[in-house]
Amino acid sequence: MEPEYVTYPASYLKDFTRSVFVHYGVPEKDALQAADVLSKADIRGIDSHGVARLRSYTDMFIIGRINPTPNVRIVRERKSVATVDGDSGLGLVVAQKANAIAMDKAAEFGSGWVSVCNTNHYGIASYYVLQALERDMIGWSMTNSSRIVVPLWGAERRLGTNPIAIAFPAFSNPPIVIDMATSVVAFGKIEQAKRQGKVVPVGWMIDKKGNPSISPDDMFDDGGLLPLGSTRELGGHKGYALSAMVDILTCVLSGANWGPFAPPFALFERVPEISVGKGIGHFFGAMEIAGFEDVDVFKKRVDHWIEVFRSTKPAPGHDAVLIPGDPEAEAEKIRTKEGVPLIRAVVRDLEEIAKKTGIPF
Amino acid sequence: MEPEYVTYPASYLKDFTRSVFVHYGVPEKDALQAADVLSKADIRGIDSHGVARLRSYTDMFIIGRINPTPNVRIVRERKSVATVDGDSGLGLVVAQKANAIAMDKAAEFGSGWVSVCNTNHYGIASYYVLQALERDMIGWSMTNSSRIVVPLWGAERRLGTNPIAIAFPAFSNPPIVIDMATSVVAFGKIEQAKRQGKVVPVGWMIDKKGNPSISPDDMFDDGGLLPLGSTRELGGHKGYALSAMVDILTCVLSGANWGPFAPPFALFERVPEISVGKGIGHFFGAMEIAGFEDVDVFKKRVDHWIEVFRSTKPAPGHDAVLIPGDPEAEAEKIRTKEGVPLIRAVVRDLEEIAKKTGIPF
Repeated sequence: MEPEYVTYPASYLKDFTRSVFVHYGVPEKDALQAADVLSKADIRGIDSHGVARLRSYTDMFIIGRINPTPNVRIVRERKSVATVDGDSGLGLVVAQKANAIAMDKAAEFGSGWVSVCNTNHYGIASYYVLQALERDMIGWSMTNSSRIVVPLWGAERRLGTNPIAIAFPAFSNPPIVIDMATSVVAFGKIEQAKRQGKVVPVGWMIDKKGNPSISPDDMFDDGGLLPLGSTRELGGHKGYALSAMVDILTCVLSGANWGPFAPPFALFERVPEISVGKGIGHFFGAMEIAGFEDVDVFKKRVDHWIEVFRSTKPAPGHDAVLIPGDPEAEAEKIRTKEGVPLIRAVVRDLEEIAKKTGIPF
Repeated sequence: MEPEYVTYPASYLKDFTRSVFVHYGVPEKDALQAADVLSKADIRGIDSHGVARLRSYTDMFIIGRINPTPNVRIVRERKSVATVDGDSGLGLVVAQKANAIAMDKAAEFGSGWVSVCNTNHYGIASYYVLQALERDMIGWSMTNSSRIVVPLWGAERRLGTNPIAIAFPAFSNPPIVIDMATSVVAFGKIEQAKRQGKVVPVGWMIDKKGNPSISPDDMFDDGGLLPLGSTRELGGHKGYALSAMVDILTCVLSGANWGPFAPPFALFERVPEISVGKGIGHFFGAMEIAGFEDVDVFKKRVDHWIEVFRSTKPAPGHDAVLIPGDPEAEAEKIRTKEGVPLIRAVVRDLEEIAKKTGIPF
């Protein structure tokens, strides 16, 4: 039997990704930046958002949905805020340019806030807030995505998994990095259960009639993910509200396709019948820490916060309370040394891309 | 038997509240503003945060914890951001002044962001974002509060219910108003169950050893509320992360008492042994809509968003999908006409305050 995983050095995967983007017409510098986003996901253990998605990006290039040489431009602005049009570019590139605009505004005005339309899938939300940390800023990042989540009490997919990321730097400790879908779980968890022939926990999903379901098959028959909180009793209206917030800041504000109208990022997903804007949307924020407090004073307070929370008495069956970002920091430590394990299906995808593009893998 | 509720006109309760604050030395204008926050909670049906809290505010005045005439001042700023020291003032007053600073910055720089230390309980988080709507801004509001929530996998109270509010104006519809604790439920729900001698749903709380509990009595014996998401399986790490975000933006950034060190707002709660800052903390943001998009265009898009989400096919057993803020808008419609129903215990509190202050009730 062939092993379930094959491990590659992160740099090898990143270089392959860069070459593939260049093959599809992306300028060298942009291709390198885009590859860095996918590579960061692989290194930080967010397997669903790394090189596993390269196949979808290339599909989008082939059908002409992504413009390899976009003119990413500000269409409206006022000092610390702006709306950016991504010109249908690779989300991984558009997002970095928009995030840079937010950070440059923060350097000039103390904070910067940018809503982006006409863009595509941008990878992991946390990539952009990690960039802000390098400039001693607190970064925010949000994006919408294609419909898979139902609003509480609904029986129809209306929202994406709409993640929110924010990060805070510490002085001696790794930073606190929050990166969370506003759905109860990521879609990938349902896919995984289906592959393994397992049921999923109550509270994750509904079937197409709106009834609670534990069968992954129902998801692929027009079911939907529940928002964080799952039910009214456990706060499902809150997850729905957070997802709505992301939808409005990323899309309604910028003029992108919100809610059920977000275009899909995989060939097998249905394209919505109606378009209410341009592409999907992102939202970036950056706040200069020095505008609020001496940077080192703040970072040392964050150290103290981390130490107090780590020392929380654990509940029975658990070793310790974690700090947001711990699992990703742990993965980064291991994978930087030992490489990135890819499942066979992803390896086959990459081999196919290699065949199509002539780039060796 | 005496009726469970007594109904009063909102204006009567507001006027009484104002007079009580004046009695404790709050200047007339500030007292009126503070009374308006509590009144808004009563009118919008958020009973736990209205005149029901007047008793706690007066207790705090009596023990000298609240400064009736604070010098609320900016201690550090850069164009669109600032840190404000509330000088131990009434949170209801400090918060309005800090929120006004955020909105004034937004008028000048497109956005404004203010972290506040040395303040007290500020009422409902949504009050401040409703003020932003009046200026065609998108407002944000967060606050920490005294420890009652456990971090996921923890067996100790470390965080407050740390709410987040944000609002978006529509053109023809009522605004979308999000106002949510980052805990699975408000503490008041546990109190209510205890009064009624009922158990609570699995997923709301733990006992002092960190085991899941459905007995409200365990909460009053050092148990804790779970964060939104309840368990790891249902995303409890996300609610914990959101609460951490609020804690850091409101307190670590401003120099207030974060996490378990937040001073309590009720006489029966224990005061933490250690202080790591000044008072509790708030965080306000305001973004000028016109900086991103034509205001009417944006508002009409929000109308469209509301209409599409309202028209979502409902799940079995439900009439319709709600829009965030619907229940509060509905309460406002009814209570503006019919008055505010107060439970007997609150009426007795007000009668006692009347006796102490000599203000007729």
